[in-house]
Amino acid sequence: MAFTVAELARRCNARVRGDGNIKITSVAGLETAGSADIAYVTGAKYHQYLAATRAGAVILAPADEELYAGTALIADNPRLCFARIASLLHARAKFSAGTHPTAVVDKRAALAPSAWIGAHAVVGSGTVIGNNVFIGPGCYLGENVRIEEDCYLAARVTVNDQCAIGKRCIVHSGVVIGSDGFGYANDGEAWVKVPQLGRVIIGDDVEIGANTTIDRGALGDTVIGNGVKLDNLIQIAHNVQIGEHTAIAACVGIAGSAIIGKRCMIGGGAGILGHLQIADDVQITATSLVSSSIYKPGAYSSTMPVEPVNQWRKNVARFRRLDEIARRFKKLEQKIQQIFSGDKT
Amino acid sequence: MAFTVAELARRCNARVRGDGNIKITSVAGLETAGSADIAYVTGAKYHQYLAATRAGAVILAPADEELYAGTALIADNPRLCFARIASLLHARAKFSAGTHPTAVVDKRAALAPSAWIGAHAVVGSGTVIGNNVFIGPGCYLGENVRIEEDCYLAARVTVNDQCAIGKRCIVHSGVVIGSDGFGYANDGEAWVKVPQLGRVIIGDDVEIGANTTIDRGALGDTVIGNGVKLDNLIQIAHNVQIGEHTAIAACVGIAGSAIIGKRCMIGGGAGILGHLQIADDVQITATSLVSSSIYKPGAYSSTMPVEPVNQWRKNVARFRRLDEIARRFKKLEQKIQQIFSGDKT
Amino acid sequence: MAFTVAELARRCNARVRGDGNIKITSVAGLETAGSADIAYVTGAKYHQYLAATRAGAVILAPADEELYAGTALIADNPRLCFARIASLLHARAKFSAGTHPTAVVDKRAALAPSAWIGAHAVVGSGTVIGNNVFIGPGCYLGENVRIEEDCYLAARVTVNDQCAIGKRCIVHSGVVIGSDGFGYANDGEAWVKVPQLGRVIIGDDVEIGANTTIDRGALGDTVIGNGVKLDNLIQIAHNVQIGEHTAIAACVGIAGSAIIGKRCMIGGGAGILGHLQIADDVQITATSLVSSSIYKPGAYSSTMPVEPVNQWRKNVARFRRLDEIARRFKKLEQKIQQIFSGDKT
Repeated sequence: MAFTVAELARRCNARVRGDGNIKITSVAGLETAGSADIAYVTGAKYHQYLAATRAGAVILAPADEELYAGTALIADNPRLCFARIASLLHARAKFSAGTHPTAVVDKRAALAPSAWIGAHAVVGSGTVIGNNVFIGPGCYLGENVRIEEDCYLAARVTVNDQCAIGKRCIVHSGVVIGSDGFGYANDGEAWVKVPQLGRVIIGDDVEIGANTTIDRGALGDTVIGNGVKLDNLIQIAHNVQIGEHTAIAACVGIAGSAIIGKRCMIGGGAGILGHLQIADDVQITATSLVSSSIYKPGAYSSTMPVEPVNQWRKNVARFRRLDEIARRFKKLEQKIQQIFSGDKT
Repeated sequence: MAFTVAELARRCNARVRGDGNIKITSVAGLETAGSADIAYVTGAKYHQYLAATRAGAVILAPADEELYAGTALIADNPRLCFARIASLLHARAKFSAGTHPTAVVDKRAALAPSAWIGAHAVVGSGTVIGNNVFIGPGCYLGENVRIEEDCYLAARVTVNDQCAIGKRCIVHSGVVIGSDGFGYANDGEAWVKVPQLGRVIIGDDVEIGANTTIDRGALGDTVIGNGVKLDNLIQIAHNVQIGEHTAIAACVGIAGSAIIGKRCMIGGGAGILGHLQIADDVQITATSLVSSSIYKPGAYSSTMPVEPVNQWRKNVARFRRLDEIARRFKKLEQKIQQIFSGDKT
Repeated sequence: MAFTVAELARRCNARVRGDGNIKITSVAGLETAGSADIAYVTGAKYHQYLAATRAGAVILAPADEELYAGTALIADNPRLCFARIASLLHARAKFSAGTHPTAVVDKRAALAPSAWIGAHAVVGSGTVIGNNVFIGPGCYLGENVRIEEDCYLAARVTVNDQCAIGKRCIVHSGVVIGSDGFGYANDGEAWVKVPQLGRVIIGDDVEIGANTTIDRGALGDTVIGNGVKLDNLIQIAHNVQIGEHTAIAACVGIAGSAIIGKRCMIGGGAGILGHLQIADDVQITATSLVSSSIYKPGAYSSTMPVEPVNQWRKNVARFRRLDEIARRFKKLEQKIQQIFSGDKT
């Protein structure tokens, strides 16, 4: 599919500088782009590639306009403009409607005529699948699941009974939605399972990365808000609530009943303990641990970066005696105070 | 299914206060419960909901008895009582026995007549499946696997050759049991695989969360004791041994040949290095790292909670010079000592 | 299959001491080995078992030769010798060639006649599968995937469109290769997906552990070098590059566009942030975080080991005031300096 530079500019509210009639068929990086490709620049480290690029057009911020002489789209947010153009030029391939002959679909499931159910997929009783939904090969949808229109489930996704997914969601391979939460009572000797009776409710425009797991609520529901983006290998425990447009990087674990605000950004490998609350617009740096509620927007960290191992170990050894050092220090301060007050006894 | 309050009390060794004839059909939270629901209270933060609850009955600890005027079950451990009642009222649906026509079962496998093999499941030669076992859709059981009675394997579980699972276990979707351990020798240039020849042996009453992985032993076996509970996305390496009734929260990684005691509780995201031993009754807080053996019961931590990023970074910068600061401090202490001993030179 | 001790020695460049005609059929641990087994010793802690072992032969380092009187293979690297012998004695069972009747293979896929496609596997259009490749039950291979000769894909592996896997790779169950990277632009309100258009390119002799995920590149490719070994539950983000023979333990997360050198060793649970570079021959200890580039070979750490919780919390409390303590300390140093310079005001 080909678009002129002028047409692309119109689609992403950018301004053309140069030849608006150039035909573009694809996006590419500055270094590999050819004459039918469009590339973009964000950040000074890409400026060096501008002189030599053979791209048909380049998307630039207004401030960078003078760095490049060729045909350009001038956009306030070049990455956003690029995302829109890439989505246009590289739209997901259309799929046929219907059900693969090897899929096992319960007769009490309700499939929109425009949906596709892939090879070896299993769809349980009472499950409702909306228009233009793609269910990949090997997916398992339990009973009374609801998948709303325009969702894309990649191969081998699991959605257990009663769970619901909103419109235009993308769910990657290996994701498990609606597994039991980790809930037990202790009878003094063994753990007794607390049945997990809630659901997982996922809003619109959510994307969920490969092998991420989202447990069903114990009594109420686990709720993922509209526009939330979850990376790979994330664990969302029972009864967690995640506010709209929050983005969570890979390998994060969120414990039971945590409530996370809107527009938060959680760095990779972070941990969030249970039964706490995080305000809107909070950023957590990678591998940090949140162990109590955060009520104010802003950035929070407990990230410890590496050092050469010998130096690191020396510091850790001191850290392990930090309380003692601090006590001795306080005593010393008091003594010095005595000296300065002339009371040197 | 409906039970009277009196019948429920009998089932969980609780005492009735009020009307034992009320019919209960379901469990619910205090806030959403209706007249046929039973709810429970643990912890002071739920006391506020007692006045307004419309629950048919409430499970209370003896100490909380006076906080509520309605019909109550008085139990020493309300959560345990609730777990038992919920299991009774919300038992897993009965399944039919047999094999789905799309399942591929080797003719040398031995299936109990009361077992169910789901759609697109694969069962290898020599595998033995006990009474009332449920094998979910898309499960893969290799050769000579043993699944004992009353196990429930959710959709898309993998159990590789020779591995064994005890009675009444629950295994959630995406779990991989018996993958190869991470074992190599180095030939000076490349890694040479050490074949992983052991098995995974899982006891009775074990539950394993979604997408958790348990590697087979290198020579001997990886062993998970009776009553162990594993949350989602946990990694158990080759030849690990986990003692009975230990509970491990999500995202924990346990390295090869670690031996973990009975009744331990390991917090989410914790790491346990290999070839070490952890005593019975040890608790590890979330995201902590165990790098050497722990011989005494008790709680251990290396958890670092977040702070506002500016304050955190200042402290980290100091930490990176902690050894130097401590040296300077020691020198200063000595000087002061000299002053106080009158030897100010 | 049986080999004489002499034959085994020849295969792994070891020297025989004792009876080279003993027939060996299997490897075992020192404690459980019988007369047809071969065992090996590395490290002093196994010396205690040498006296009582009933192994047919033992692999020993030259330095340990005198510790054992029976038949021995003397090898510079006993573990390497053991790995080679174990691979010989316990080779993976031969599989038949062909396609299981329940597999769904697109007619435009090209399968080598010696390959096997397992039950319920799905192979897309344009996909090429080399000689002696084993595709396990329930695997999904998208379109235009390339799997080179002698690869082994365990049950339930996902390889998405355009991705390529080199020769002799082993991919364990639940692995997802070629899922979308985590890339968005922000339109001021919501996240707009940046289409992920690159591939995953995996070299020869790579092994990938259970439930590990490797995202496709955004524009260019994600590249895993020859001989790389990845353990379970690892996340490799888009456009990461991993150099040859690097080994990465379980639960590691590597963020986008990180470039990791050759022969690195990354400990379990470590995190590596994006857009940075790690030199060849770098070791990172378990659960450490790399937040900026590392240009020199060597070992790096930010590992914090556990302590009893009371002591730990005291130290953390001090740590949270470390910047303040350090400031006060500096002031005190200056005062003392004044005393010693006779300027006590």
